[in-house]
Amino acid sequence: MSDTHILALDEAFDFAVRVLETNGFAPDHARAISRTIWACQRDECHSHGLYRLLVCVHTLKSGKVSPDARPVITDVAPGLVRADARGAYSLLAYETGREVLIEKARKTGLAALAINHCYHFSALWPEVEAIANEGLVAMAMTPSHAWVAPHGGTKGVFGTNPLAFAWPRPNGNPFVFDFATSAAARGEIELHRRAGKPIPEGWGLNRDGLPTTDPTEAMNGAMLTFGGHKGSALSAMIELMAGPMIGDLLSLESMAYDKGAGATPYHGELILAFDPKIFMGAEHAVHSSRAEALFDAILGQGARLPSQRRYEARARNTASNAISIPRQLHEQLTAMLDPETASRPF
Amino acid sequence: MSDTHILALDEAFDFAVRVLETNGFAPDHARAISRTIWACQRDECHSHGLYRLLVCVHTLKSGKVSPDARPVITDVAPGLVRADARGAYSLLAYETGREVLIEKARKTGLAALAINHCYHFSALWPEVEAIANEGLVAMAMTPSHAWVAPHGGTKGVFGTNPLAFAWPRPNGNPFVFDFATSAAARGEIELHRRAGKPIPEGWGLNRDGLPTTDPTEAMNGAMLTFGGHKGSALSAMIELMAGPMIGDLLSLESMAYDKGAGATPYHGELILAFDPKIFMGAEHAVHSSRAEALFDAILGQGARLPSQRRYEARARNTASNAISIPRQLHEQLTAMLDPETASRPF
Repeated sequence: MSDTHILALDEAFDFAVRVLETNGFAPDHARAISRTIWACQRDECHSHGLYRLLVCVHTLKSGKVSPDARPVITDVAPGLVRADARGAYSLLAYETGREVLIEKARKTGLAALAINHCYHFSALWPEVEAIANEGLVAMAMTPSHAWVAPHGGTKGVFGTNPLAFAWPRPNGNPFVFDFATSAAARGEIELHRRAGKPIPEGWGLNRDGLPTTDPTEAMNGAMLTFGGHKGSALSAMIELMAGPMIGDLLSLESMAYDKGAGATPYHGELILAFDPKIFMGAEHAVHSSRAEALFDAILGQGARLPSQRRYEARARNTASNAISIPRQLHEQLTAMLDPETASRPF
Repeated sequence: MSDTHILALDEAFDFAVRVLETNGFAPDHARAISRTIWACQRDECHSHGLYRLLVCVHTLKSGKVSPDARPVITDVAPGLVRADARGAYSLLAYETGREVLIEKARKTGLAALAINHCYHFSALWPEVEAIANEGLVAMAMTPSHAWVAPHGGTKGVFGTNPLAFAWPRPNGNPFVFDFATSAAARGEIELHRRAGKPIPEGWGLNRDGLPTTDPTEAMNGAMLTFGGHKGSALSAMIELMAGPMIGDLLSLESMAYDKGAGATPYHGELILAFDPKIFMGAEHAVHSSRAEALFDAILGQGARLPSQRRYEARARNTASNAISIPRQLHEQLTAMLDPETASRPF
């Protein structure tokens, strides 16, 4: 018997929705969450794929997240819309606020969507990619939990603080990146721990503030930012803009709020959208094709664009209409479709 | 005789203005350029200090930069103002556009200033700091010349593409950073070359695309970004947003435009401003003080904030009302005040 289970694309999406609905999520939340989890699985971002259904249901059963709160959208200013998730996952708030964000950016040139009071677990690239698919340039950022030490320090202050960016291209997929400002994702350190492997130097410090290659010591000590003092500065920017600037929690505060429950972090998210048609003006097509010269210069010397591997996986899995997940994960999730199992606390 | 020459703060500013005016810059351009050069010297950012007067005059005498073009300000959209420098240095265009940028951000929540068709040599921190001093959050970025290879590549595509950020603090100096997305500044490599010292690994590649610690080889080959693929992605973002998005040149195009003259790069600059009072809403003071908890957590563990050394230099030099520059530089600049010297081509 194979170690993987194969689902058709539509089947995988419906499966995710059913797991979430059976376990208590309202239909619109189940669909919003499934859209991002499904997209990650299709693109073979396994750590943000169908496996996250387990985490979503665990967090719901721990009583932390709202399964059905309706996001409240507030038109704060010509350039700013607020989507209050009211204790639910971020994704329905994102989807509901996105339309207003895009409409605003098309009027003012640029606009911001502040998502507040949300539980947050999702990759940011599907969010910026969706905005680029509407012809806009997009940037997104969030704090998380205070696991990451500032440059020159030894104690966690920053979250893994991802930054994502998308640029629409006249033909084909947008230019997209989405990276953690920590040297490694927390999940990568956890994978090393489970595999009994040391982590590379530069990923973490032990409780005494000394460099360590022991994954458990790094998880209990502090993670490090990428790129030394520059990565640390960038992480501080994300912390400030997607935290206090939008009136939401710092990674330090989000961690304190969790009280050691190990639930999904609870904080805010900031998304910016820029309308290149307004910025570029009448010569929009000319400037847009000039941007292509940058991509040509990168690809022409054998280097890759940030999302290239992901887009290749997407093309392959879309052509074969097949999404593979580990058989064990499929069995775990299938068991969660049983109403009796679903009604039990996790 | 001491190797340094000491000027009082006002004297240093007047001296810079006189050097620029005597050598052909219009008074408003001379003052705008001097303000940033003077601030850098006061804060002991020597590479962007009074030494740059030599470069400004050299570039003017090479016939590249306009000494007196009036920037043209265009109100493009509720969130976007354009300042066309019309072939002059960026700084008067920045100063002229800044007021409109701030006014717009206070109305729309966030706004952008696109500076176009400018020669650009200046540090970005004085620009974002000035906006933070008005109570706004600010971000600035520019391309430069295509010296920096993308991650996985071997040939220059990106500029040194700096990113600067400022966050206003209720008491005292704003939180500010300003870093190149290249592993090192081009000037640092040049300083190693002059000193006959090798550069650290990770700064550059030779013409064959192989890692080198020879500064001359790296200057003739390609520089590298900081932070591997993440720094490279960030540099691409800056290239796109402060290049084609604002209808201005990529670093590749700016380098081609220079035709090997070695003049100051000619391109655009993007500045974003966010009004935290609008973003934070009624609880502005609360959220603003919550941001201070982040700085306390960094400083409390013995780490430093990005601009701390610069602010310390500023406090020291302001208290003593003294700016030191190398005696040789002072002599070179003083000679340029002689109208006969000034009238000669450089």
